[in-house]
Amino acid sequence: MRKLSLFIATSLDGYIAKPDDDLSFLKLVEKEGEDYGYADFTASVDTIILGRKTYDYVRREIGASHYDNGQRDVYVITRTEHPRSGKTIFYNGNPSELVRRLKSENGKTIYCDGGAEIIHELLQHDLVDEFIISVIPVLVGGGTRLFKDGRPEQTLELVRAQSFETGLTQLHYLRKRKP
Amino acid sequence: MRKLSLFIATSLDGYIAKPDDDLSFLKLVEKEGEDYGYADFTASVDTIILGRKTYDYVRREIGASHYDNGQRDVYVITRTEHPRSGKTIFYNGNPSELVRRLKSENGKTIYCDGGAEIIHELLQHDLVDEFIISVIPVLVGGGTRLFKDGRPEQTLELVRAQSFETGLTQLHYLRKRKP
Repeated sequence: MRKLSLFIATSLDGYIAKPDDDLSFLKLVEKEGEDYGYADFTASVDTIILGRKTYDYVRREIGASHYDNGQRDVYVITRTEHPRSGKTIFYNGNPSELVRRLKSENGKTIYCDGGAEIIHELLQHDLVDEFIISVIPVLVGGGTRLFKDGRPEQTLELVRAQSFETGLTQLHYLRKRKP
Repeated sequence: MRKLSLFIATSLDGYIAKPDDDLSFLKLVEKEGEDYGYADFTASVDTIILGRKTYDYVRREIGASHYDNGQRDVYVITRTEHPRSGKTIFYNGNPSELVRRLKSENGKTIYCDGGAEIIHELLQHDLVDEFIISVIPVLVGGGTRLFKDGRPEQTLELVRAQSFETGLTQLHYLRKRKP
């Protein structure tokens, strides 16, 4: 079955953003020519799912083509209706149902790029199969947590931990499923 | 100057205990003969500081000699007065003031073994110099967080990340101080 993966950066204290969507702490680990495996990872992806606020943020800061490169299906979870744009579909149904349907179809990895609310919803329904978490060497002190309270316990299998010169450590886990 | 170190285990989602002080997830990484560097670490320690609830828990589960081995100073932070017992001092003053005083004296590493409230207080006052955090391969879903909201930003320097056969990854950082 297709897997759903997270590939996300967090501060050591567990925040994916400081208050007001401040991502400036990511600059601590920016290094020319170092993408921390992002290109390799996305080469295995044919479907992206993300929240509307994350989509708007990235569209504004980087551009919509960061997600929709014409080759991947992009699902933006939103409460309001929008017409499809290129390969980007605005989906106002239940994200867990969407992921269950996508997983039942043939395809490559499904990549969830956040935000925290969508990740929380998918974790509550045990729909995340792979976690690639880049730990930034900083305590930001507050903001948006990667993991919210109130989820079921899920055991993981460590694939590997890899450190980089910048001090970033990437932790890679698979959800341990009962055989 | 003496440093104050944390040496603590957390789930990947950032909890040091599940509700009701449930630490059973630590069993996931228990392995005969593997102490994840604890003995080496404590060999560099001559002073332990910890909260009263953590002290009571460990005294009940393991015994008071886990902390007080007759060779180290043990400070238990408490709101009520208790007479000194062996090398264990019950301290009902301000923990940050205690740590500042201890740091100004000669000695080896000061080890803070929690709980989360004492750690939070010390982080708020930027008194933690070293973080040795063992990440257990599990999402526990809720409980007592290692890092509470509302602290100042603190940049860290990665010393190393080390993975073990059990899936535990130990992240080791030093607080990056301005020169």
